[in-house]
Amino acid sequence: MNEILNCINSRRSIRKYKERQISEADVQAILEAGILAPTARNQQKWHFTVIQKRELIERMASITMENVMRYADEHLKGRASMPGASTFHHAPTVIMMTADEKTDYIELDCGAATENMALAAESLGLGSCFIASSRYLLKSPEGVAIMKELGIPEGYRHVCCLTLGYKDFTPEPRQRNKNVVNYVR
Amino acid sequence: MNEILNCINSRRSIRKYKERQISEADVQAILEAGILAPTARNQQKWHFTVIQKRELIERMASITMENVMRYADEHLKGRASMPGASTFHHAPTVIMMTADEKTDYIELDCGAATENMALAAESLGLGSCFIASSRYLLKSPEGVAIMKELGIPEGYRHVCCLTLGYKDFTPEPRQRNKNVVNYVR
Repeated sequence: MNEILNCINSRRSIRKYKERQISEADVQAILEAGILAPTARNQQKWHFTVIQKRELIERMASITMENVMRYADEHLKGRASMPGASTFHHAPTVIMMTADEKTDYIELDCGAATENMALAAESLGLGSCFIASSRYLLKSPEGVAIMKELGIPEGYRHVCCLTLGYKDFTPEPRQRNKNVVNYVR
Repeated sequence: MNEILNCINSRRSIRKYKERQISEADVQAILEAGILAPTARNQQKWHFTVIQKRELIERMASITMENVMRYADEHLKGRASMPGASTFHHAPTVIMMTADEKTDYIELDCGAATENMALAAESLGLGSCFIASSRYLLKSPEGVAIMKELGIPEGYRHVCCLTLGYKDFTPEPRQRNKNVVNYVR
C-alpha cells in the first residue's frame, strides 16, 4: 500500500481535540490542498472561512445545537443531547465552506475540497471531522447574523464545515459496507 | 511537501487515455479508497458501478452528448461540439456513483469518495476525470434504459462519474483563484 492509500485508509473522523492551536504553516498547506480540488467546469465558486476565535466557535456551536434540538430529526437530537456533545467538538480551528448559491454541483466540488483538506490534515499529523449539521446554524436569526460576522461573501451559502486540531482521541475504524459495488464488463 | 500534499498538487484532470485497460488490483484499490471516504452520519447510501464494456461506455457518451446538444447551456454545448469531444473521454473504465435519492448530503459524500478515488488513481500512476455532465444521460428514455442495464439499485440516482485509465496527455495545471479565503481570529 503506497502512502496515499495508507493515508486514506488510516484517517478517522476526530471528535476530541487538544487545546493547542495548529500552526499557520499547516493552515496554509490545508487550504492549498482544498483549493487544488477539481471543480465542475473549473468554476471554483467556493469560499473558505478559517475560524480560530474560540469564543465564536463555541457560540456557533451553541446556537447550532439549540436549533438542532428545535428543528432536527431524532437522530441528530439524540447526538446533540449526549453529554459533552458540541457541533464543532471544541476544535481550535474550523473551516467553513460556502459556495455561490446560484451555481450547480457545488456540494460535489466542496465534498472534494473538504476531503482534500481532511487528507492534508492527516498527512500533517492533525485530526479533522466533516460537519454537515452546521447548516442548522442558519435556522435562527442569531445564526444568520453570525454569517455576517464571518464575512461570508454575498450570495454564498453554507455547504459544510471541517474541524481541525491535534487529535486527543483516535477511534477505531467505522464499519464500511463493502456490498456497494457492481461491475459491467 | 509530503507525499500526500504532493499527490494532491500534481493530480490533473485527464481527458486523453491510452487504450490499455487498468488492472483489477488497481480497480480494487481505487474502490477501497472511495468506500473509505467519510459520509454524513456514516450513512454510506452510495453505490459504485464499474463500467468496463467499451461499447457501452461509447453508447452512453453518445446518448449523453445528444442530450447535451438538446438541453444543456451554451457552455456545455460548445464543449460537446469540439472535435473529438466525448463525455467519458474514451476512457477504458468509468465508475458511476449513484446514491439513495431520499438521503441528504449525498453529493457531499460522493464528492469526497470521488476525490479519494481520483487521488488513489494518481498514486497508482493512473489518470482520472470527474464527470458531472453524465447526468444528461438521464434526459432521454434510451439513457434511462441504460441505468437499468447498469444495474443501479432501485431508488438510487446518478450523482457523478469518474473516468479512469492510463494517461495519454497530461495538461498544465489550471489556474486556481487563491482569493477565496478569509480569516476570523
